Amino acid sequence: MCSDHAPAVEIPAVNGTNGVTNGRRQPKLPYQQHHSDERSNTGRFQIIESTLREGEQFANAFYDTETKIKIATALSDFGVEYIELTSPVASPQSRADCEAICKLGLKAKILTHVRCTMEDAKVAVATGVDGVDVVIGTSQILRDHSHHKSMAEITETAIEVVKWIKSQGVEVRFSSEDSFRSNIVDLLSLYQAVDKAGCDRVGVADTVGVATPRQVYKLVRTLRDVVSCDIETHFHNDTMCAVANAHAALEAGATHVDTSVLGIGERNGITPLGGLLARMIVESPDYVKSRYKLAKLKEIEDLVADVVQVNVPFNNPITGYSAFSHKAGIHSKAILAKPETYEILNPSDWGVKRWIHFSSRLTGWNAIKSRAGQLGLIITDEQAKLLTQKIKAMADVRPLAIDDTDSIIRSFCLEHQPEDQPDQ
Amino acid sequence: MCSDHAPAVEIPAVNGTNGVTNGRRQPKLPYQQHHSDERSNTGRFQIIESTLREGEQFANAFYDTETKIKIATALSDFGVEYIELTSPVASPQSRADCEAICKLGLKAKILTHVRCTMEDAKVAVATGVDGVDVVIGTSQILRDHSHHKSMAEITETAIEVVKWIKSQGVEVRFSSEDSFRSNIVDLLSLYQAVDKAGCDRVGVADTVGVATPRQVYKLVRTLRDVVSCDIETHFHNDTMCAVANAHAALEAGATHVDTSVLGIGERNGITPLGGLLARMIVESPDYVKSRYKLAKLKEIEDLVADVVQVNVPFNNPITGYSAFSHKAGIHSKAILAKPETYEILNPSDWGVKRWIHFSSRLTGWNAIKSRAGQLGLIITDEQAKLLTQKIKAMADVRPLAIDDTDSIIRSFCLEHQPEDQPDQ
Repeated sequence: MCSDHAPAVEIPAVNGTNGVTNGRRQPKLPYQQHHSDERSNTGRFQIIESTLREGEQFANAFYDTETKIKIATALSDFGVEYIELTSPVASPQSRADCEAICKLGLKAKILTHVRCTMEDAKVAVATGVDGVDVVIGTSQILRDHSHHKSMAEITETAIEVVKWIKSQGVEVRFSSEDSFRSNIVDLLSLYQAVDKAGCDRVGVADTVGVATPRQVYKLVRTLRDVVSCDIETHFHNDTMCAVANAHAALEAGATHVDTSVLGIGERNGITPLGGLLARMIVESPDYVKSRYKLAKLKEIEDLVADVVQVNVPFNNPITGYSAFSHKAGIHSKAILAKPETYEILNPSDWGVKRWIHFSSRLTGWNAIKSRAGQLGLIITDEQAKLLTQKIKAMADVRPLAIDDTDSIIRSFCLEHQPEDQPDQ
Repeated sequence: MCSDHAPAVEIPAVNGTNGVTNGRRQPKLPYQQHHSDERSNTGRFQIIESTLREGEQFANAFYDTETKIKIATALSDFGVEYIELTSPVASPQSRADCEAICKLGLKAKILTHVRCTMEDAKVAVATGVDGVDVVIGTSQILRDHSHHKSMAEITETAIEVVKWIKSQGVEVRFSSEDSFRSNIVDLLSLYQAVDKAGCDRVGVADTVGVATPRQVYKLVRTLRDVVSCDIETHFHNDTMCAVANAHAALEAGATHVDTSVLGIGERNGITPLGGLLARMIVESPDYVKSRYKLAKLKEIEDLVADVVQVNVPFNNPITGYSAFSHKAGIHSKAILAKPETYEILNPSDWGVKRWIHFSSRLTGWNAIKSRAGQLGLIITDEQAKLLTQKIKAMADVRPLAIDDTDSIIRSFCLEHQPEDQPDQ
């Protein structure tokens, strides 16, 4: 059964207030014990949406120009602050598409992502983008097996490229690649150098999906005290930590998070747009609701899933088939009484509905009584308990469809003919 | 193209050694900077596999007896230490199935999960299980809207139930429900009381998926100093932190993690078995490989996906369609030279293969040269670069199938007729 009457989840605000009221600190529950120190940007982050760059590196992605424009327009309308596009150096059409999207005049700023070389930077700036994201591998393994450059060479080129892009009046981000397998001294020295060269953002990238939230927190917190510019973060999801890592980065002072719709990207992808927002709305509901058109998330996910020919995973956050389904009797009873008992997210914020199962051996009499009510059949608690035993006995033998259960409910009510039963 | 020759990922061991060699601490990379303090159990955790309990609460799950036995047997063979079953109180068949699985003599210990009451405990013990997992909601919201019991009543019953189960020679776990929205003093007092009553494990449960890794770390680390028994943890995945939270719990001293196959459970489920192992193998490869038959993971996931009628998500860790696919030219080049450049997991550990894309506008000449080699066509670097331009030009216009690209490669090679070209 669907229930629409979920009030907003009542979470005491912890951000910004430091938990102090009337001069006394308020006691906190364990889930509220996050740092609300001045570094934390969990209530003021920005999204760099990379479905059109990282997402194009997903196995199935082939975007024609029209598709790219459709996705970019939808993302800008959704409210993401930046849209990142494939390098114009990748192919002639990539370049033409980049130029076309820059001319759309979208609200979101347009970025493109290129290698940290003067050649790539020049092509990038010429497309008319608002900003250029440059990147180079800094771990020993990438230096040995990918580009064979020393840290001194990397630093020298990075400074030249950053300065040149800034001289063109264009925003610039410098990111290391494989940051978490890079030497920390090398990393911090490089970031400090590009910061001094006028970089708008430095990027920390977990290119292989190896980092854990505590490692992310530690690195970003250290970096926060080294550079004065913004800090962008990029997390692959190989070990399923991409959302938690993004959250930890924001807690430590990062300012920007890279996402893609459904997380698509190289291998099993990066921090998904929906997953990040599910995480962040718990902590910063006002901020998230004020910036992003959450009810449009499902439409954008369906669009991208269709383009890259995948199914939205059954367990996708928020929009997955089962994200708001409740089944065990104990859960259903409490959800019927007060949805916040078993929901930290409010489906109505996202334009989706909850679903309470009543056709299984795990069902409880509260769900059955509620279903009878939806069918216009009024029964007592005692009758509901008896009826539930019958339904559980049937569901113990075979899977029950909703129609099966509804038939059992109707037949039970006919049999018991309560005097005040509406005739139907 | 598939490449099979991945050597094991060479990660310097950090667990157990404390990073000290020849009396000197070794410098560490950022991803190695986790705590290797004595509390951490990242190298000695146990899995409580709950596909047959939490997983039965997934919207689509209907398990007949034969299916339950098949899943339980596969999980035990895989190597999980515990298998948790639906409460025998849920329905007569649930009880009969629980008894049947106890009689199989599986290597894994069999648990069942019941409400914290004497009535449920007695039914549970009578089934012949190795252990009983009892649970009760401790947050104010669950106490108000679910069971209406005070903390004093909860504590009194919990002590009685724990003592009685122990008196029957059966293992017992006491878990709070919604732990992260419970009062910390209430929680710790209750855990301390059941620990003193002889509990084998206390359970911390993020029932609504609200917690973040740093909150988990803090709570479990505090709890570790309060109780002497083992600590089990259970994380829902509503905000996509379930794997990171389980990892943080182990770092903080938890001993057991609840999982389900593909993460199935209420709403969008809990920490998935495969996701947890993907995370843990990075840190503790020897431990994970010694205990679990990783090459069987895909078979178990396919079995469960089939039973509950879902597709394995395209982005599932390890076994997802794209988990080991590489597409961008820079990635492919490095993967061909050394897979560890862009893979922190080794597909051969899991009996799966990597895939390097060569049919897209993002491809690079190294991937094309390698593909030509697979076709028995030897070309020079210069020829490969020229050929790659042709392929990228085609892929810029429309999606290319593998056959299309292979045709372009063959036709190019015919045209250029290198003298040493094998005739085919």
